[in-house]
Order: sequence, then structure tokens, then C-alpha cells
Amino acid sequence: MALVAVHEARSRAEAALLCAGATPANAALQADLLIEAELRGIPSHGLLRLERLIVRIGNGVIDPRATGRHEWRGEGFLHVDGQNGLGPVVADAALAAICERAQRLGVSVAAISASNHIGMLSYYAEAVAGRGQVAIALTTSEALVHPFGGRTALLGTNPIAIGVPTANDPFVIDLATSLVSMGEIHDRAHRGQPIPPGWALDAHGEATTDPEKAKAGAIAPFGGAKGYALGLAFELMVSSLAGAALGRDVRGTLDDTAYCNKGDLFIVIEGNSGQGEALSRYLDLVRDTPPEAGFDRVLIPNERARALREERLEAGLPLAEAVWDKVLRLSEEGKR
Amino acid sequence: MALVAVHEARSRAEAALLCAGATPANAALQADLLIEAELRGIPSHGLLRLERLIVRIGNGVIDPRATGRHEWRGEGFLHVDGQNGLGPVVADAALAAICERAQRLGVSVAAISASNHIGMLSYYAEAVAGRGQVAIALTTSEALVHPFGGRTALLGTNPIAIGVPTANDPFVIDLATSLVSMGEIHDRAHRGQPIPPGWALDAHGEATTDPEKAKAGAIAPFGGAKGYALGLAFELMVSSLAGAALGRDVRGTLDDTAYCNKGDLFIVIEGNSGQGEALSRYLDLVRDTPPEAGFDRVLIPNERARALREERLEAGLPLAEAVWDKVLRLSEEGKR
Repeated sequence: MALVAVHEARSRAEAALLCAGATPANAALQADLLIEAELRGIPSHGLLRLERLIVRIGNGVIDPRATGRHEWRGEGFLHVDGQNGLGPVVADAALAAICERAQRLGVSVAAISASNHIGMLSYYAEAVAGRGQVAIALTTSEALVHPFGGRTALLGTNPIAIGVPTANDPFVIDLATSLVSMGEIHDRAHRGQPIPPGWALDAHGEATTDPEKAKAGAIAPFGGAKGYALGLAFELMVSSLAGAALGRDVRGTLDDTAYCNKGDLFIVIEGNSGQGEALSRYLDLVRDTPPEAGFDRVLIPNERARALREERLEAGLPLAEAVWDKVLRLSEEGKR
Repeated sequence: MALVAVHEARSRAEAALLCAGATPANAALQADLLIEAELRGIPSHGLLRLERLIVRIGNGVIDPRATGRHEWRGEGFLHVDGQNGLGPVVADAALAAICERAQRLGVSVAAISASNHIGMLSYYAEAVAGRGQVAIALTTSEALVHPFGGRTALLGTNPIAIGVPTANDPFVIDLATSLVSMGEIHDRAHRGQPIPPGWALDAHGEATTDPEKAKAGAIAPFGGAKGYALGLAFELMVSSLAGAALGRDVRGTLDDTAYCNKGDLFIVIEGNSGQGEALSRYLDLVRDTPPEAGFDRVLIPNERARALREERLEAGLPLAEAVWDKVLRLSEEGKR
């Protein structure tokens, strides 16, 4: 592990993106997504992803200068053609537009197609809720999850994030509708450890505890039939509104050469500031409820990540050597 | 079991509500919710609930003539004071208003407080999607679910329904964020059968397989920490926007005497009719995927309920004798 100061990691990531052709603003925003993921202990959405971004820019399937073309299909409904831009850049521009619109109308929606991986959804939900509005964020991805009772991967990991303003820090959830991430399967494979029964199927649709076989197979939905239903509904809703690809036709979130054709959906609703105190009191009650046998305490979603963030802002980011070496190389290569 | 013709069950339920003071339109709508639940095989939301509605009307905590007072807090955001009206009546009036608004703006939201139990959420999601719009429906309820890792009930069963138009029947999901319903626990108790480990805690927060003890305790969230996060987010989001009560302060969905203070939230988004064919082709692919060992086939949410509905429209409703006797008595009493 390398322990790297946040400003050092940030400036290296920005440098690499700048040299790949991103504008300063776009490089800063994309780097911020990667750094925030590292700060919150979600390395699967962190600097690990920098190389793919740079390679995809080099291959012409990401345009690092694009911010997306906005088309209001109704006063409250924004459709965005992402013009193959960096996911966070396109998402941020769309959110800025609909947050302003929601202030006036009470609600506004953005449906985004032809944009790249937008990173941690909680980033957006927390930012919106921090400004006093309720946010729902959805994004689709390549098919990695099998239907409940089915043998093959037909659904994305299709996460949802929700942000709600309170009297204190915003309340935020961010969860995939898969039982685990493909990153966790790869991590087990890397460490030579089996995966628990029920996590995944192999390429033939048979249950497996071998992470190598699972990598070629499919992950289970979380929560059985209910998690499957949610993941399927998100796949359909996002595709319907954004005009995005579905299931196995989705490309460009796990490869270097395909245009990204998944969709993103943001719903922003003007918050009710009168309820903030009541929500915070209720969250205190939940946090302080006696834990069940086997648990230390009841957790409120996102609070552990937020505490870790504070810690790492001081202490620095613990990065895998290979990841940090790659970031250094990418930022040096760019300068030549 | 009594096998009752649908029109007979419907007219009896309507008669009971009419005599309790509902207008003909309100009686028909409330009865329709109960009948549709029976048709779809969800008796927990069916005629079983008629008696409580009549008693609550008699006790003055439901006003069977109210349709709700509408206040547009923005052009796209409707706040509804339900005026203690029948849940379906208030919900239907709110939905009519926002579906029209969404046609023009692209999106519209209704947040409802002071309304009664709205029944099956899928009813609303399916109706909206059937008219070509995307619907998200949320409602809160009395605290029956414990936080993941916590000992006591602090969350409602907080269901979500989503409806998406396709080229064929609308796609609809409707699921509680609890692992099972309290109705299922009561059913096990009634039949003297144990409940599986993991379903519930007793009144002291200890794991139990005794349904009698579970009735006084708390149900688990579905899907562990993720289902808990969703249920908590829905509780907060609905309360924030509707101004509804939270957790243990929620009353009036399980008793005869308290004003109902939970909240409902509907989001309607103008659909993209151009995607209908693609969604239907994808659903065909999911439906036809080979089943995993131990499964007959892969199910699409709501399709089994829809098939059962067709069957029962012909064959009639199989009702528990006690439930049907009560409906008959309520409709006769009303006439006197």
C-alpha cells in the first residue's frame, strides 16, 4: 500500500486527464469523482478507473471536452445527448440545469444517453441534498446480474442513490441491485479465496463458489425476487426515458473501445425545509436503537463512509501500489 | 372458502361503503381497490379491510366524502391535504392532476398527507403506465420493520411500485421493503406453523420462529442492509415531501380510532413511446432465459398476478368464509 496525500493524488489524476485532452474544469470534475471514491473507501470507483478513461479518450470513444447537448422535452424534462463526454461532466451539467428548474417547478428530471461511467451515485445525491433538494439517481450498466431463477447475466448492476436533506448532514443511500459487485468477485479471485454460496453462477448457469468461474458467469440480484424486480424496473425505466440500450446490448462501461450506450436518470424534487428537524430526530432514534445480538450498533447509511472521508482527508489515501504507480505513469506520460 | 362472482362481491362492498356515507363515486373506487387485490391474489389488501374502513368511518377518522385539498407549491409539485379521505379517492384525484401536468411539463409529483390506506400500490402504477407514462409510487405505514442490526420496529413496510409503459402490457413492480408482510406472520400464527429463522424478532428483540411472538415484535427488512437502506430512504423522502409522521409516530393504518398520518408520494414522468418495442423485446428475452436448477421458469414481475386476475374474472373470487360473511353483514347492516 502507498499512503498518498489527497492533493497529490488529485493533481496527478488531473494532470493525466488534462494531458489526454480534457479541459481544466472537466479534468478537475472527473478527478474529483475518483478521489471522493477513494476517500469514502470505494476503490472500485476510484483511481483504478483512471487508466481506462485515458485509454478510452485515446481510442476516441470518450470526448473529454463534451458536456452534453441539452434538449428540454417539456419544461421539467431534460433529455441529454451526452456526446460521449466524461460521465461526471455530462451529469454535472445536467444536474445544474434541473436543480435550477426544480427550484421553480418543484420537480425536474434529466434522462441522459451517450455518456460515460458516472462513478459513485452518492456523489450526486449528496451534493443535491446538501443544497436542500431531494434527489433520486439511477444508472444502468453492462449485463452482469442474472434474473432471479435465471441462468445468464441479463441485467446491469443498476444502482440507485437517494439523497434527502435533513437538519444536519444530508441522508444518502447508494446501493447496487446486485448482491455483490463484480469488483468483489475479482478481489476474491486475486486473493485465491472462494466466494460464498449464492453469490454467483458460472458461465453455464450453475452455482459456483469459484471466483474465477464466477467472473465468466453472473452475479445474483440482492434480496432474491425483490432485488431482481427493482433491478429490472430500473433497467426499463432508465432505458425508456433516456433511450438507452438494454441488457446485453449495453457496452462501454467495462471495455476500452465501445461507445457507451447505457443511460442515467436524475429526479430532483424541491425539499421541504420544515421537516429537517423531524428527520434528524428520527435518524437519532434509529442510530441509538439497541443492536441485535451479533451487531455493535445500528448504522445509518453513508455515515461510515463520511467518517472515513474525514479521516483520509487528514491521513491520506491508502492506494494499492499498482494503482498509484499507474497514476504516476499516466501523469508523467502525459507531460512528455 | 366461498366462491363469489366478482360483480356480487363488488356490489356488496360498494353498498357497505355507500351506507357508511361514501358518495357513489368514492364507494366504487374504494371497492375497486379491494376487489382488484382479491383478483390478483393479494387478500391482505382485499375485502378483509372493508370492516376496518367502515368502523373508521363510523369513528369519524375517515371522511368518506373528502377528495383532498390541492395546493400547487410549484407548477409541477402538488401537495395534497387528504382531509382524512379514503386513501384511493385522495390518491386518484391527486394522480389525475399530476398526470395531466406531467403531459405538459414532462414530470409532476404529488405528496399526500392526512389520507388513509391507499391499498395495492401496483393499482396506481399500472393505471398510469397503461396510459403511457412512467410512475413511481411510495407510501409509508406504521413501524413494523426493524433496522438491519437493530432490535425494535422503527420503519414502516414502506413499499415501492414502479410502472413503465411497453409495447404490450405495462411493466409493473410492487414490493414492500420488509422481508415478509405482517399478514404472512399472522397467517402462520393462525395455522399454528413456525416461521423460518430470519423473518422476525420478538418483543425483546430476540430472533424467534414463533409467529405469536413475532406479532408483538418486528419483521426483518428484505435483503439485509440494502433493503433496510431503501426502506429508511423511502420513510425519510415521503415524510420530507409530504410532511408525514415518521417511525413509531405513524398511526391510523392498523387501528380503528387514530387519524392516519402517514404519507404517499407519486412521481409521474412523461414516457418515451419510441422505446416500447425495445422494452418488450428485452422482457421477452428475460422471460425466455433458461431457468436455474430448482426453478420452472424466470418470472416477470406482475405477470402471475395479471394471469390470476383473468382467471378470477371468469371463475369468481375465492374468499375466506369469515371474510365474505363479514362483507354480507356489512352490506345488510347498511341497508337497515
